Amino acid sequence: MKIHDRPGFPNPARIRIVLAEKGLDAQFEFVPVDLIGAEHKQPDFLAKNPSGVLPVLELDDGTFISESTAITEYLDNLDGKPTLTGRTPREKALIHMMQRRAEADVLDPVGLYFHHATPGLGDALQAFKSPEWQGRAEMGQREAEKARAGMKYFNDVLADQDFLAGDAFSMADITLFAGLMFADAAGLGVPAEHGALLQWRERVAQLPSVKNRSGQTFLPFDLKRMGF
Amino acid sequence: MKIHDRPGFPNPARIRIVLAEKGLDAQFEFVPVDLIGAEHKQPDFLAKNPSGVLPVLELDDGTFISESTAITEYLDNLDGKPTLTGRTPREKALIHMMQRRAEADVLDPVGLYFHHATPGLGDALQAFKSPEWQGRAEMGQREAEKARAGMKYFNDVLADQDFLAGDAFSMADITLFAGLMFADAAGLGVPAEHGALLQWRERVAQLPSVKNRSGQTFLPFDLKRMGF
Repeated sequence: MKIHDRPGFPNPARIRIVLAEKGLDAQFEFVPVDLIGAEHKQPDFLAKNPSGVLPVLELDDGTFISESTAITEYLDNLDGKPTLTGRTPREKALIHMMQRRAEADVLDPVGLYFHHATPGLGDALQAFKSPEWQGRAEMGQREAEKARAGMKYFNDVLADQDFLAGDAFSMADITLFAGLMFADAAGLGVPAEHGALLQWRERVAQLPSVKNRSGQTFLPFDLKRMGF
Repeated sequence: MKIHDRPGFPNPARIRIVLAEKGLDAQFEFVPVDLIGAEHKQPDFLAKNPSGVLPVLELDDGTFISESTAITEYLDNLDGKPTLTGRTPREKALIHMMQRRAEADVLDPVGLYFHHATPGLGDALQAFKSPEWQGRAEMGQREAEKARAGMKYFNDVLADQDFLAGDAFSMADITLFAGLMFADAAGLGVPAEHGALLQWRERVAQLPSVKNRSGQTFLPFDLKRMGF
């Protein structure tokens, strides 16, 4: 099986953490995608994922799976012992609810801010980000506000429980962790008054599946090194 | 168990179809929410779902579950025999991938168009839709274009297979079905040249869980009757 991705970016990081949690790395070949050169917006890649985003899982039968939630469902259920997506109906529901909130309220808004209100990943990719739209910088700023509100919400949640969906680390935590690292890289940061959120982030950063791979597999990504 | 919703609207329709598919209606009490009066943006409702959207599932232990995907995971797995969210890792992955695309490429853009580029549901709710933002109508029109592109994509998919995730009706089909009905209600419609998409819609409309409940439980919703 193959993973088409680019190490160091938020959504690829989500799946690399899942692979480490499930002990699956050795079963996968990683195929690099030139994100800076906008390879993911070209016909060859769009045939694999029409949405034009990373990562993409390629099964041995040639099926392509995109969307990090979908890829995580696949990987987490491969051994019949899901640990990241829930076992009971209640666990599944809470994890999917918090995973969606982490995407919609933090990760996605940070991405919209980064790509529309900053130079983003540079000219090659900006050409695919509606450069003609006058209102995009303002939209990006509004999304930054949304991300800040999302951080406040999650700080409140984490004042009462260890992880987003309750007592156990799950897919939802991975999504928010990637979202906060993206926020750092995009210059938004995490306000210092969000103590519960920052403590949770430190707790997640110390998990073996996260800690042992830092620098190689996830954020803070290497924008500075790439000249941005 | 309770469902807080408002019949006739897209996301509530998704869950009502799931309940019918799973034969669960009788186990639930439906609590009406005044969508037109923006009850879902007031503190009492926000305590149930901070995202301020319908529907919300209330479990007997007082837990509130929002996000239609999460509610569907709960309901579909209650009997230990999932039929809408997949059984194998591959099924789960394909269904979650297509469900997310149906939301991100059709249902959500139609909603953004409706609420920002049209009078939407009227003044009470518009007050919560960033009325001060100059760029919102333009953003709404851009979302309409996105929805049209999404419809074209799904028409292509359905030229080759019966349902979004393959041979079987799933959560993904329910989401797209709700999205197209919302498109009709919002005045966007479905282009007549999308024959495969329209044939699929007719096939879904004839399913017992959908057909037997029309008018009462899902779109075309009753905006006209409400004076919009």
